[in-house]
Amino acid sequence: MPPPALSFPSFDPSTNPSSLANALRAINDDRHIPAPSAVRRPSADNSPYTKSLSPPIRQNSGSATPRVRPHATTLSIPGMTRSLVSPDGRIADRDVAAKLVIVMVGLPARGKSYITKKLRRYLAWQQHNTKIFNVGNRRRTQANVLSPTKPTAAKLVDTPTESGASTLNGGQSDSHTVNHSPSTPENPLVDHSAKFFDPKNSEAFKLREEMAIDTLDELLDYLLCGGGSVGILDATNSTIERRQHVFDHIKAREPKLGILFIESVCKNPELLEANMRLKLSGPDYKDKDPVKSLADFRERVKAYESAYVPLGDYEEDHAMQYIKMIDVGKKITHFGLEGFLSTGIATYLSSFNLSPRQIWITRHGQSIDNHFGKIGGDSELTDRGHVYSHVLYNFITKKRKEWLIDQKNKIAQSSFPPLPGDKSPPYPEINEELDGKNTCVWTSMLTRSIETAQHFEADEDYDVKHWEMLNELNAGKFEGLTYDEIARDHNDEYVRRQMDKLHYVYPGVGGEGYLQVISRLRDMVREIERIKDHLLIIGHRSVCRVLMAYFMDLTRDDIADLDMPLGVVYAIEPKPYGIEFHAYKYNEAEGWFDEIPDYKPQKTVDRHA
Amino acid sequence: MPPPALSFPSFDPSTNPSSLANALRAINDDRHIPAPSAVRRPSADNSPYTKSLSPPIRQNSGSATPRVRPHATTLSIPGMTRSLVSPDGRIADRDVAAKLVIVMVGLPARGKSYITKKLRRYLAWQQHNTKIFNVGNRRRTQANVLSPTKPTAAKLVDTPTESGASTLNGGQSDSHTVNHSPSTPENPLVDHSAKFFDPKNSEAFKLREEMAIDTLDELLDYLLCGGGSVGILDATNSTIERRQHVFDHIKAREPKLGILFIESVCKNPELLEANMRLKLSGPDYKDKDPVKSLADFRERVKAYESAYVPLGDYEEDHAMQYIKMIDVGKKITHFGLEGFLSTGIATYLSSFNLSPRQIWITRHGQSIDNHFGKIGGDSELTDRGHVYSHVLYNFITKKRKEWLIDQKNKIAQSSFPPLPGDKSPPYPEINEELDGKNTCVWTSMLTRSIETAQHFEADEDYDVKHWEMLNELNAGKFEGLTYDEIARDHNDEYVRRQMDKLHYVYPGVGGEGYLQVISRLRDMVREIERIKDHLLIIGHRSVCRVLMAYFMDLTRDDIADLDMPLGVVYAIEPKPYGIEFHAYKYNEAEGWFDEIPDYKPQKTVDRHA
Repeated sequence: MPPPALSFPSFDPSTNPSSLANALRAINDDRHIPAPSAVRRPSADNSPYTKSLSPPIRQNSGSATPRVRPHATTLSIPGMTRSLVSPDGRIADRDVAAKLVIVMVGLPARGKSYITKKLRRYLAWQQHNTKIFNVGNRRRTQANVLSPTKPTAAKLVDTPTESGASTLNGGQSDSHTVNHSPSTPENPLVDHSAKFFDPKNSEAFKLREEMAIDTLDELLDYLLCGGGSVGILDATNSTIERRQHVFDHIKAREPKLGILFIESVCKNPELLEANMRLKLSGPDYKDKDPVKSLADFRERVKAYESAYVPLGDYEEDHAMQYIKMIDVGKKITHFGLEGFLSTGIATYLSSFNLSPRQIWITRHGQSIDNHFGKIGGDSELTDRGHVYSHVLYNFITKKRKEWLIDQKNKIAQSSFPPLPGDKSPPYPEINEELDGKNTCVWTSMLTRSIETAQHFEADEDYDVKHWEMLNELNAGKFEGLTYDEIARDHNDEYVRRQMDKLHYVYPGVGGEGYLQVISRLRDMVREIERIKDHLLIIGHRSVCRVLMAYFMDLTRDDIADLDMPLGVVYAIEPKPYGIEFHAYKYNEAEGWFDEIPDYKPQKTVDRHA
Repeated sequence: MPPPALSFPSFDPSTNPSSLANALRAINDDRHIPAPSAVRRPSADNSPYTKSLSPPIRQNSGSATPRVRPHATTLSIPGMTRSLVSPDGRIADRDVAAKLVIVMVGLPARGKSYITKKLRRYLAWQQHNTKIFNVGNRRRTQANVLSPTKPTAAKLVDTPTESGASTLNGGQSDSHTVNHSPSTPENPLVDHSAKFFDPKNSEAFKLREEMAIDTLDELLDYLLCGGGSVGILDATNSTIERRQHVFDHIKAREPKLGILFIESVCKNPELLEANMRLKLSGPDYKDKDPVKSLADFRERVKAYESAYVPLGDYEEDHAMQYIKMIDVGKKITHFGLEGFLSTGIATYLSSFNLSPRQIWITRHGQSIDNHFGKIGGDSELTDRGHVYSHVLYNFITKKRKEWLIDQKNKIAQSSFPPLPGDKSPPYPEINEELDGKNTCVWTSMLTRSIETAQHFEADEDYDVKHWEMLNELNAGKFEGLTYDEIARDHNDEYVRRQMDKLHYVYPGVGGEGYLQVISRLRDMVREIERIKDHLLIIGHRSVCRVLMAYFMDLTRDDIADLDMPLGVVYAIEPKPYGIEFHAYKYNEAEGWFDEIPDYKPQKTVDRHA
């Protein structure tokens, strides 16, 4: 027998007499533009800060107060979207509901800092203002401060570095992590030995609690008053109490802010060993006896483990969105994701792998248009360009062999705990697949790029693919002109471009700017992260700049000015502690490449490009 | 004390004398192109079909035979990538490792068919050849065949329909599900009553096993000989034995094929009730007493439940990649994803939600270039175009109100089990949020589209956003010409386009074709699926065609010819059983829109467009 009908009230359409007649009247009213209705904003929920755990949310419970329509928070990406409230495509300050607090969760040495740094770099590259707020840094600072109950004033200073092992992200990878000025004298109450992390040490517990909330407040200041879009709270947050505390504290300040928990779990013992290897060269243990350090660190982890509760039922019962990563991308669970940032982050994290490999980036050989200084177009290589394509083939082929030998030697010499200066690759099991690695060669769909890959195309050892998204920035109606001609005949455009190359968009249908190129390369970066193969990209000036900006963590202001001449090959090697860069300059006379010693990204000297 | 060094052999670089001298010699050898090395393919692993469960795979175990380099299988998307082995951008037949068998897992009424149909539609729209192979269909066919041990010959015929409730996907949604010609007489051995699904019924068990493998063989024929890229095996596959059996059978035929398990789990009782509601109007229970049917169906589910083992430890120990969806996108776990198809599918499935809502699609009002018949460009609206923008605003505003009333009335009248003809929305809990729904208005970045949204922009009730990816197909160097001019001055191009509009790409840098538009709208479709808001898209001919192709499941051949005139508004309402379409034609004299009765997609009558 069917159950009784549900009890929603029936609505009467006659109370809404909007109709054809109305529509016609409106049109005849001299192009009446409808008056904007009053701005409706949900009133701030001033729920008091609470230490007690919340009862589960009944997601489907009827609510007594009528729900007020929030602003839609759909995809905002500079170069891809814009609106009245966001003319530049960024997340508008009005759209607080689209902003995101990421709360990291996980035991020490589970790769949290690796994930936060990479995630920040990716989001910043996609032009979302993003900063990491690290509780461990505050602890380390407090350990050096005389009065432990009065933390140093929160100050956003860009100084190196937070996490430990040297990071080679263009020498600036941590300028976006919020740190505190270090001072010298040690304080006995705050330290980094295992006993400070013992849950039974109540004084230390209180201190750790305060440090976490102080750090969180800095993060909220950044999102609510500092123009930030994403703030990442990098700490263990290993208990339900702490996480609920953090959650309540955020909601008390701004109920609309998105909150996303991201947990990193390591089940693979080899991965865990590798992470510990990195910790031992970090700030807490640097230059100390590795065997003693490992013992102390294991004690510290044990202290956390005793109270550790992974993300799960509690968060699901309380409708808290989360992502759980197990063994760096091997297994991922996500729950209740809301908003384009959270879903985009889940997709990006899914692409992670730690396979050792090389990524090479270079521009095509000299083209006929290059020779005449014309921009854009689709011309063929010159003879010099053809020779470049051949030297490039020989060079990469040789480098592949050397890399393989080098990797195997390093693995043969590695030890654990690591000896001082041991930079051996930390994932020996993955290295067994070294021999079977493919090398992909990706070009654009333009002739000069495809021709530069001709010798790779003829060798079955390489997989060559052409990509629409690698095409050069479209110069719209200036395609085929020289910069001198643009400066002479379209001086206003020329000047506008010189003033702000990043935001400049070439006139004419299809004309692009750097933000458009960043946006169209997003899928490619995810594909680069996903594959485990070696990769050579034969691109064009703007796409190479944008790709290098991702790997080198260039700031917004530097992307469009990065020096990116013909005839330089950049070698990128992702490592767990950062990225290693090398650059090689084409030696046309010798028919080979010379390494540029200690390569650092340079500002272009070309006054036009 | 450090453990002894690992025992990898040290390699000697001197055995690889490739060097500067070699490179120079190669260049001087009259532009020597390296000879392609012999094609290396892994030998087929003819492991015999086995019924026994496999021991866990030791992922890191050293292998005795040297690993042979496989072909790289990076992103293949027509319009975005191409290569020598895949000139059209599709997954090449050589790249079997990039092809995918999707094996569905889950109890009946868990939404498997909903997921498979939507996934197939998405993949086909992205130009990957995809077909569903449904074991239940074979069972239903066999129930009507005299000799149950001799299945009808496997035949790929395009006939409607497999799953049950009427689907309104442009009237052709199931033409891609493989079915079997129905005949009439009933057979007592194969039926759809609960006792056929009892695991203790050994004769029925054997029959079900055979049907599953026969269906799988059809699927493999499609992937290995029929040009398919993805085959979806739609069945319960609820035991480890069955899944291992399916896995072994695939590997025995082609060890390189990708295999992805996708499980659908419902924990939300309201969702489960809604799914059962759909089943009762499906082919097994259609026109039968709903109360008796529900009882029988619940028995059938119980029979499966007794032997059901969800995806988990077994698959992880055996390195089988999987995706587990809980409550349609609410919670997702994925393990060991390999390949761009699997990761892309995980991302797409993450975007699912069942929020009831409307999606409206229309072109901009008449522009000045429209008036003169010029293609492309960035002209303003004519006066007629401005009037259209106003009527559109009034119409949508009225339709929103009507929809809300209609939804609430339907909910008020729903019952369970459903009465005959009851098409009430099946997710009442979500309907509580109806009042708070936003309406988004998305335009391109082009003037005529932005101007058409002007009245929405002035109303705070709407969220207006402009999208780069909604811009009209770029006509390259033909921008601003009329079709007559192209036919007269560039007749060869004109004819090439008429011959194959889908693959035609306009000449000139930045020139696009339909495949490029499909590729750039992929992210937008995912964003449309993700949000729960109402949506009005004010686009252009080509982008509207491509978006409609996604929702209406148009075949490759029809996309570029879909009739898409100015002045028609399409209303799309996604439902659990398919998509409801309505179309409204602008009545310029009346200043309103008239519904086109029983709208079906039409071929364009415009001889040019």
